[in-house]
Amino acid sequence: MTNAFTLAVDAMGGDRAPEMVVAGIDQACERHPDATFLLVGDEAKLAPLLAKARRAQTACTIRHTTAMIPNEMRASQAIRQGRGSSMRLAIDAVDAGEAEGVVSAGNTGALMALAKIVLRTLPGIARPAMAAIAPSQRGDVVMLDLGANVECDTRNLVQFAIMGDVFARTVLGLPEPRIGLMNVGSEDIKGDDRVREAANVLRASPLTGHFHGFVEGHDIAAGTVDVVVMDGFTGNVALKTGEGALKLTRDMLKQVFTSSIAARIGYLLARPALVRLREWLDPRRYNGAILLGLNGVVVKSHGGTDAFGFAHAVDVAMDMVTHRFNDLIRAELGRFGADENGTQRSLAG
Amino acid sequence: MTNAFTLAVDAMGGDRAPEMVVAGIDQACERHPDATFLLVGDEAKLAPLLAKARRAQTACTIRHTTAMIPNEMRASQAIRQGRGSSMRLAIDAVDAGEAEGVVSAGNTGALMALAKIVLRTLPGIARPAMAAIAPSQRGDVVMLDLGANVECDTRNLVQFAIMGDVFARTVLGLPEPRIGLMNVGSEDIKGDDRVREAANVLRASPLTGHFHGFVEGHDIAAGTVDVVVMDGFTGNVALKTGEGALKLTRDMLKQVFTSSIAARIGYLLARPALVRLREWLDPRRYNGAILLGLNGVVVKSHGGTDAFGFAHAVDVAMDMVTHRFNDLIRAELGRFGADENGTQRSLAG
Repeated sequence: MTNAFTLAVDAMGGDRAPEMVVAGIDQACERHPDATFLLVGDEAKLAPLLAKARRAQTACTIRHTTAMIPNEMRASQAIRQGRGSSMRLAIDAVDAGEAEGVVSAGNTGALMALAKIVLRTLPGIARPAMAAIAPSQRGDVVMLDLGANVECDTRNLVQFAIMGDVFARTVLGLPEPRIGLMNVGSEDIKGDDRVREAANVLRASPLTGHFHGFVEGHDIAAGTVDVVVMDGFTGNVALKTGEGALKLTRDMLKQVFTSSIAARIGYLLARPALVRLREWLDPRRYNGAILLGLNGVVVKSHGGTDAFGFAHAVDVAMDMVTHRFNDLIRAELGRFGADENGTQRSLAG
Repeated sequence: MTNAFTLAVDAMGGDRAPEMVVAGIDQACERHPDATFLLVGDEAKLAPLLAKARRAQTACTIRHTTAMIPNEMRASQAIRQGRGSSMRLAIDAVDAGEAEGVVSAGNTGALMALAKIVLRTLPGIARPAMAAIAPSQRGDVVMLDLGANVECDTRNLVQFAIMGDVFARTVLGLPEPRIGLMNVGSEDIKGDDRVREAANVLRASPLTGHFHGFVEGHDIAAGTVDVVVMDGFTGNVALKTGEGALKLTRDMLKQVFTSSIAARIGYLLARPALVRLREWLDPRRYNGAILLGLNGVVVKSHGGTDAFGFAHAVDVAMDMVTHRFNDLIRAELGRFGADENGTQRSLAG
């Protein structure tokens, strides 16, 4: 499959931008030789960086702007004052059809707000959802929503399940993904009305064959299902709590292996397998949260990532574009009976 | 300090009850030589077990019943049909003043419902909260609510903060605990109205000096604060997600150290420090969730735990009783201006 697509990249977003962005694109170019990038940012800074990155130089076109959205800016301010910023121009390029998707390591709230306003939600989708992939005992797990919507109703949860299902089938390549709805217990009587009603809607929907039922927090790492659906508040807390617990053991293991000379030698002997484990759990490998449900592919890289992590976020965007994810979502929503005004009939909460 | 207190114990709750319960009490007796236990359950099963457990035999009195509450029973059924069950009789003993607290490894929903109905909430507390201790980079962290209330309002969150503060001061012995409110970001504008309003109430309250502000999921394992306050849905998911992530690395490390002969030798060399790490993260050490805010101490042990874990749950109950936790909570609520009808003035959400 050839990846002759264009991605717009916010070159100025992220703690170590633009150096890390250009270096990340350079790494990603190796895996996507036919891709081109519209690099939006300060030309005076970008040109010298590109001059030193051979692959990126060939693949990138610079769109110059010195304006950028600071990390502290509120989403509402970004909407009013963000015109002409690197993030906004990168999103505009997708809206104008100059690029198939956008990648940014900048202000998350601003990216969500601008992407929603400029690109608008897909017909039948009330609200976009932030999704990401996490490691588990049984392969990769898609988690959504991770914070795009701190308050969700039944209809939102059902739509997240549809989008997660398509994501797992296309990007993860699972023909029959299992979908779980996050709750405080697996029994039908658990939880609030919202999750119980969402479960009822999903059981009566075309997705019923993929719907596993309720899952609990420990089911994420256990890999009980392929897709874990939850409201954005819960998802954000779950993602960060899991990351925190993994970091805790990583840090503690470092202490273990420097606690004595014998332990240092022990580390050297077990090193190959320990390095494989560390690589497998490396948060940079899971970098690149996807804003699903918009007319265009939008990927948010972690702000603190490095070139290796940013390249992964580019991979994620390229995967979405290559698999024509949004076309599949549109088709899937048709099966669920969304009419052309975007009103859901069978999905009403 | 002498621990001449009595705990009522539901001898029939838990996957491996009553054997694990009696063995757990036997272990706990070593640390609480003056404590006595009212062991509620089937005498025909309990008497032979006690005959083999010297310390427990001296400390325990059996209250006979063959009725028990199954794990699948709904809370509403447990209320109607649970009279005479081992769990109910153990709670009744606290209400009657025969015991200072109760420990059960049985049905969580039934325990919460029966405890609330029989013991009632403390004046000024609208709803009890489930709290537990988790390990972090900087010492133990109290998390609450862990699922007693899947829907919470501002007032509930504020009351959880007060109870968490007293818990950290008395049971953890921290004179100035730092209290964090769980949110999806640390900035003031993040989250829903409920958490933003709770933050405002706490900042204007007598607790303001201990209130750190918003925290995120990764702050639990980082130990950013000593007390993490959240609604029961979020807390339940966060607790189980963190446990799942820790289990994932534990299982993966087992694979690492059996992946080659060199890795096996490496394990032996690093063994003392690895064993210390495993013991520190051992979930049995954190067994014993406390139902805070009731007239009496109620501790829920994990149903799947063993004697070692159950003994820890007994320790937790004994800590609460010894520190006269409920008297301190009453005094603290006075400072917050709760009137005698239990209506909160300054805490209104």
